[in-house]
Amino acid sequence: MRQIVIGAAQMGPIQKDEPRKAVVARMIALLEQAAARGCDVIVYPELCLTTFFPRHFMEDAAEIDRWFEREMPGPETAPLFEAARARGVAMSFGYAELTPEGRRFNTAIVTDKAGRIVGKYRKVHLPGHAEYDPERSFQHLEKRYFEPGDLGFPVWRNLDAWMGMCICNDRRWPEVYRVMGLQGVELIMLGYNTPSVNSQDGREGLERRLYHSELSMAAGAYQNAAWVVGVAKAGDEDGHHLMAGSVIIDPDGIVVARAETEGDELLVHGCDMDACNFGKSTIFDFARHRRVEHYGPITAQTGVIHPDSGA
Amino acid sequence: MRQIVIGAAQMGPIQKDEPRKAVVARMIALLEQAAARGCDVIVYPELCLTTFFPRHFMEDAAEIDRWFEREMPGPETAPLFEAARARGVAMSFGYAELTPEGRRFNTAIVTDKAGRIVGKYRKVHLPGHAEYDPERSFQHLEKRYFEPGDLGFPVWRNLDAWMGMCICNDRRWPEVYRVMGLQGVELIMLGYNTPSVNSQDGREGLERRLYHSELSMAAGAYQNAAWVVGVAKAGDEDGHHLMAGSVIIDPDGIVVARAETEGDELLVHGCDMDACNFGKSTIFDFARHRRVEHYGPITAQTGVIHPDSGA
Repeated sequence: MRQIVIGAAQMGPIQKDEPRKAVVARMIALLEQAAARGCDVIVYPELCLTTFFPRHFMEDAAEIDRWFEREMPGPETAPLFEAARARGVAMSFGYAELTPEGRRFNTAIVTDKAGRIVGKYRKVHLPGHAEYDPERSFQHLEKRYFEPGDLGFPVWRNLDAWMGMCICNDRRWPEVYRVMGLQGVELIMLGYNTPSVNSQDGREGLERRLYHSELSMAAGAYQNAAWVVGVAKAGDEDGHHLMAGSVIIDPDGIVVARAETEGDELLVHGCDMDACNFGKSTIFDFARHRRVEHYGPITAQTGVIHPDSGA
Repeated sequence: MRQIVIGAAQMGPIQKDEPRKAVVARMIALLEQAAARGCDVIVYPELCLTTFFPRHFMEDAAEIDRWFEREMPGPETAPLFEAARARGVAMSFGYAELTPEGRRFNTAIVTDKAGRIVGKYRKVHLPGHAEYDPERSFQHLEKRYFEPGDLGFPVWRNLDAWMGMCICNDRRWPEVYRVMGLQGVELIMLGYNTPSVNSQDGREGLERRLYHSELSMAAGAYQNAAWVVGVAKAGDEDGHHLMAGSVIIDPDGIVVARAETEGDELLVHGCDMDACNFGKSTIFDFARHRRVEHYGPITAQTGVIHPDSGA
């Protein structure tokens, strides 16, 4: 048994004017809860230092820049790292990254229990659009503010387990889980900011969207025999509602903990990494069962090509 | 709207001594129901002409051969094709195929409304094992009796829609749905024979296995915006219980029809192929959102390679 006690730290809404210092104080409060409950690692949401700013259309560079972090840790996040190191809790969280070269990514990091960053992931599957879209009920401008991640889907050895990350919309893409599964991943940590209504179809509401989210994560967990921890930023941000539904899912695809609120809430579950072994060595023993000679189109083509149509 | 009325024809158990003629009569009875209820196509299970023989360990070639079809249609299946043609119902079903060259496949075919075979699929993901395994509570010898399919995952234009097939264990592999999704598939038909208990872990019983099956099919439907029809052979065959749980799942991943029995039972649902369009043009618009540059391991490697381990 290789138990990791995981704290899934759902966060309630962050309003547009809420300063990072106040957000970090909330994160430290969750961390203290996690430490008191024996957590080895705490997982926070995507872009958890600010409101979900891609809902706002901005053209002014300085206005855009204020949502981004130029260093990690920086002056405002250093207290969080200090608190995590002092309590010996590893952590993962998401933020908007502005590199010294001026590149922008939707990023997540994971630390060890000494507060050292041991892994970084940059979101690959950016949803939404790049220009103002008058046909949507609200904007989702991730393709405007970020480039697609350039680091692939790495897996790291941390806390005596194989760990990987993805972010929000990545969780709907089976390729994401599989690339990590092919590296033997045992724990996938992800955060999300997911509007409760589809901006392109108002009939697709909260219940349906919670279902899609959990469906995708549970399938990814089961089909790769890995733990999946999905953590929401939830509730009403500046008049826009984000779904909650944070979950911890076991390697058999079963939800073992689920958030009950739309606010700051810590889910705690002791997760045995050895519970991955049965699936990985039987029905999903990839070496025995996968047939890569028939998977070619998955990497050879991006979009749909109908048979015999040539395009 | 491009409606196809689908009949998912679950079949109850077939005992070891039940002759094909009796099975075909049951299939024709289901076909007549389907015709009466306005079905355009009827979908039968995997290996639906006989009991699920891979549970039996056999060494004698003649004993093995009796489970296989050398031609399709053959003398015993011709009445089914005649009935389908007479009623103008397309059909898909699975059988054990023995080719003129002596090759053996777990195969499914689909016909048009004139009873012509327009597509053939050979099961790629064979579960189980090739030699007698004394550690299992029962045998699952698909790797003994079949070669892996050699036709990939083709998609055909039939009934004014893009259709594909897979078989049983294939449904647990997201690569299967994705390769068809990349060909624009709108309807995936599959049959299965799934033991109600895991032969390698008796604690994994019926409820858990029905969940895994539906989870995989619903995720495949949602993530490729396609209808999925999963059809069981169910009930007690020669003392071995097969799960039921036949379903029709819409392109949003929602189960719209589910079998209530473990016997011969027809589920009928009018399925609008245009319901695939929204998902295929928004969140799962592959051309806009997929990032194949990060999917390399999916086709480059079969088994797990841990980072930095080199093996």
